[in-house]
Amino acid sequence: MIPNGMTFLGLMAGGCTTFAYLPQVIKTWRTRSTHDVSRGMFVLMVAGIVLWLAYGILQNDLPIIVANVASLVLTTTILYFKLRFG
Amino acid sequence: MIPNGMTFLGLMAGGCTTFAYLPQVIKTWRTRSTHDVSRGMFVLMVAGIVLWLAYGILQNDLPIIVANVASLVLTTTILYFKLRFG
Repeated sequence: MIPNGMTFLGLMAGGCTTFAYLPQVIKTWRTRSTHDVSRGMFVLMVAGIVLWLAYGILQNDLPIIVANVASLVLTTTILYFKLRFG
Repeated sequence: MIPNGMTFLGLMAGGCTTFAYLPQVIKTWRTRSTHDVSRGMFVLMVAGIVLWLAYGILQNDLPIIVANVASLVLTTTILYFKLRFG
């Protein structure tokens, strides 16, 4: 299947907002410093992503499932570092 | 219109992932310290949200538009602080 322009735009958008967490994971992994990172942000974000994942599963929507599994892994890692080293 | 369970789940999910940025905005506003915040994360996130906004406008999807306008304001504020005080 060749995605049309609109699907491509959505995939680009989802790719950016999902992999945006990667530079933060790498930075936190290296520095072990999370003083300026908000715990509240990542608690709310993990909770929201779990809800998106439930929504995707119930709607049987693969792009929502895939994007949110990736986001969940990345944001949970950041939250773990915050709770461990914050 | 009374939203059904699925719509409610989606709205809850979007509400959490949108307003998750608020604690980070408040923390950064107060401390003016963004040393541990990744610039790459917020550059990618702002870019992704702009793409989501374009997608929502082209699809004429109000929930996507509203959620991403709110997210854009919040993430742009964090990115501004990072570039200004980072």
